[in-house]
Amino acid sequence: MTESARFELFAFWRTAAAYRVRVACNLKGVQPRETFVDLDAGGQRDPAFLAINPLGAVPALIDHAAGAPAVPLTQSLAILEFLDEEFPQPPLLPQGAHARARVRSLAAMLAADTHPLITPRVRQYLTTQAGFDAAAVRAWIVHWFEVGLRAVEQRLATEPGTGRFCHGDQPTIADICLASMIATARVLGAEFTGVPTVYRIVGECDALDAFARADPYRQAGAPAR
Amino acid sequence: MTESARFELFAFWRTAAAYRVRVACNLKGVQPRETFVDLDAGGQRDPAFLAINPLGAVPALIDHAAGAPAVPLTQSLAILEFLDEEFPQPPLLPQGAHARARVRSLAAMLAADTHPLITPRVRQYLTTQAGFDAAAVRAWIVHWFEVGLRAVEQRLATEPGTGRFCHGDQPTIADICLASMIATARVLGAEFTGVPTVYRIVGECDALDAFARADPYRQAGAPAR
Repeated sequence: MTESARFELFAFWRTAAAYRVRVACNLKGVQPRETFVDLDAGGQRDPAFLAINPLGAVPALIDHAAGAPAVPLTQSLAILEFLDEEFPQPPLLPQGAHARARVRSLAAMLAADTHPLITPRVRQYLTTQAGFDAAAVRAWIVHWFEVGLRAVEQRLATEPGTGRFCHGDQPTIADICLASMIATARVLGAEFTGVPTVYRIVGECDALDAFARADPYRQAGAPAR
Repeated sequence: MTESARFELFAFWRTAAAYRVRVACNLKGVQPRETFVDLDAGGQRDPAFLAINPLGAVPALIDHAAGAPAVPLTQSLAILEFLDEEFPQPPLLPQGAHARARVRSLAAMLAADTHPLITPRVRQYLTTQAGFDAAAVRAWIVHWFEVGLRAVEQRLATEPGTGRFCHGDQPTIADICLASMIATARVLGAEFTGVPTVYRIVGECDALDAFARADPYRQAGAPAR
């Protein structure tokens, strides 16, 4: 079975968590067949998709390898670790428990502490249950972006582990998570000041084909930029 | 150096992420010296603590081993992975990339997709910026607890990997994250219906000394129950 027949990725063009999986697959040279789930049209609640992933969440990665569980792989951080275990080269985590902990911590500051606050389901609650208008929703989003990016900036700018990328000179899951947040910010038309190291490192990511090909606007279903 | 001199844990009695680190340390037989950071009194913004962790976040774990980085370990999921790499027995992740991905995905559904929505900083924004009163804050918390726990319940009740614990018959990081959320719910006086597998597994956790000793009400600074 070729790798492209082995994996099937259910994703949406602008979802940050799907971006993370796309970058990791690109870095590993794995090309999943991608199935578009139109979140804008409620595709995540379509019975056909719920039969695949009852949780109605993207990204979901199905491994069609013989003997692999039928249950889809979900949660981007878990999928990144899975891909790194299955395809060790190039590594997405550095050598050494302390270095790996730093990378995982930076990744979690973005994918766990920041991104979940701005997802569509949260915005929907704020709009329908709390009376937020569009400006208030945008202020909410910008606030949590700023909190998360500034905390990451402070670490990147001061900790000795930072190199060309978040940790050393090779991209890791921390860079993937960082780039995913900036990719989302770009879709929202948001730019942030006071985080120069963040943007320097994202520039390094932008220059890599694996990241460039994961750009939301290059995915099926994306509008013209 | 004994293990108790090696590690220093900065924590607060009821913080779910600190609970997770305490359970993992207990399971591994590691006993950090614990320093109380009084989040109710703003201790996370105290200059003395900011000199330790400029991000003002607990838990923070300092490794005083010779040659270890001065930068504290942060983010509970990263600390759990670190402890599992440094102290492999008993393992907190199962064998096999697919099984590990399932455990990490369940853990992320709780620690990444649920818990960040109900942290003090989010509640503070809702109160000060969005006019939420106490009842609206509680409704927000209960809503996200229910969304997260019901999604986890659906997986635990239907996926073949579930055993006595979330995955198989030994506690993993998924159980630690699940128990941390229920520990937090208990502090809030919240109970949830329709999640019998969740409560069955938390009952298994409660029966283990490593979890019982991490109970928020057994920590320094906790009020009488």
